[in-house]
Amino acid sequence: MKIGIIGLGLMGGSLGIALKKRYPSYQLIGLDHNTLHCSQALELGLVDTIASTLESIVECDVIFLSIPVDGIIAALQTLKSVKPECTIIDLGSTKAKIVASVPPLIRKNFIAAHPMTGTEKFGPTAAIEALYQEKVVVLCNLEESGEHQQKTALKLFRDIGMRIVFMRAAEHDRHAAFISHMPHALSFSLANAVMRQEAAKSITALAGGGFRDMSRIAKSSPEMWVDVFRQNKANLLTSLEHFSEELEKCRQMVQDEEWDALNAWMHDANKLHDIL
Amino acid sequence: MKIGIIGLGLMGGSLGIALKKRYPSYQLIGLDHNTLHCSQALELGLVDTIASTLESIVECDVIFLSIPVDGIIAALQTLKSVKPECTIIDLGSTKAKIVASVPPLIRKNFIAAHPMTGTEKFGPTAAIEALYQEKVVVLCNLEESGEHQQKTALKLFRDIGMRIVFMRAAEHDRHAAFISHMPHALSFSLANAVMRQEAAKSITALAGGGFRDMSRIAKSSPEMWVDVFRQNKANLLTSLEHFSEELEKCRQMVQDEEWDALNAWMHDANKLHDIL
Repeated sequence: MKIGIIGLGLMGGSLGIALKKRYPSYQLIGLDHNTLHCSQALELGLVDTIASTLESIVECDVIFLSIPVDGIIAALQTLKSVKPECTIIDLGSTKAKIVASVPPLIRKNFIAAHPMTGTEKFGPTAAIEALYQEKVVVLCNLEESGEHQQKTALKLFRDIGMRIVFMRAAEHDRHAAFISHMPHALSFSLANAVMRQEAAKSITALAGGGFRDMSRIAKSSPEMWVDVFRQNKANLLTSLEHFSEELEKCRQMVQDEEWDALNAWMHDANKLHDIL
Repeated sequence: MKIGIIGLGLMGGSLGIALKKRYPSYQLIGLDHNTLHCSQALELGLVDTIASTLESIVECDVIFLSIPVDGIIAALQTLKSVKPECTIIDLGSTKAKIVASVPPLIRKNFIAAHPMTGTEKFGPTAAIEALYQEKVVVLCNLEESGEHQQKTALKLFRDIGMRIVFMRAAEHDRHAAFISHMPHALSFSLANAVMRQEAAKSITALAGGGFRDMSRIAKSSPEMWVDVFRQNKANLLTSLEHFSEELEKCRQMVQDEEWDALNAWMHDANKLHDIL
């Protein structure tokens, strides 16, 4: 089995490690427009060989697209000559625009997936073996994919230890805005609010675990996240509205010294952890 | 040496474990208005004995106040009969109102401290040995405390592995709003924004590490945090304004599709981690 991985950053690189561990005999072929990433991926053993062009990867049995969403949409247009049994799996953070962009000729070959995992680090050196273990992967509009491709994708994700959730692409994008995209906007805003204070260094000298947790994802790649915000603009704006409504409630209760109501509102927030 | 710990929750209980480990011969006397907490603290070995009233604890050489800020202010009024060499250390999350409330009679006995540590859990069963290790403790207005009390507090905090930062109470409260209080308001708001969605369960089924980190402190005790928000109202409102200004910038750039500006703004946020 030949597996192509397009994009050798955190997601693609970690996938290489996980696949290699589970299937030592499979051949892993990497591709990345960044030549430093290619040599790092080889050195770190994330893939076995590097392909020089997208066209040379079409012979693979499985092709993973672990690049920003815009890149996925562009790459799909150039993958029309894959083998009939080829399975193309994208790992993009938004799904509706990607699914809508798949050329009809390869729609059966295509699987829309979003692994709900990551760290704030990026590039091949950020790749870790455990990234996918016991994490959720969302598969969207699966009935539009071929039967062989469905089986192949399910087996691969299960074999690297993932839990599978099925969802419509539009539903995925709405939910992902709340669970991932909007929280990134909050973390970036928190980091900037502190950084713009004159006393930023004295403030961060006091940072405990809470602040470190809240600001961790503010380290994330701007290139990746601008792309996600663009692709999921409408849902992101809606989720931001819902957040801002809650924050304004909080601000107003503090302003008006409505401490009992604030207490009740915090108790409501505590309940999240009954379902999480 | 007799050490009294008033409040046997996460902070007081963890302090008991840390002190017991460092000074096996010291006698630790606990006090808590919650009788279940008292019996749990004894069972878990957080303290050696339980005192029945605040008055019976005044004979201690050191008294820690690890209760909500309002409780600290009330307790200080009843501790006027401590021994001249007694060191009273409060661990409250805000400092200006506490410092202002100390009866002049015991001002030399008093040390205002804020350990920048915690977890989202609370009560004696949440106590852990490592809570204070290698964490920062802020000591405020230290020159107003007696020389013996300064030495005693510095030694105790250093002996349990803490790094010490000195600050004026007003400055502490401004900084703590940014680094701790406002982030709690964000986390509670995020949790409520998700919980009020019809599809809350489907949304949280997708939660990855980012969301778990951002919503962790939304599990925190409403009783404690209403108290903190009340005590630090003005600074909290100011820090919320600064946050909201950044979030609104982000929202506006997404709305107007100013992707280059958004990219630059995210790069600014990345810089937090150069100083954190």
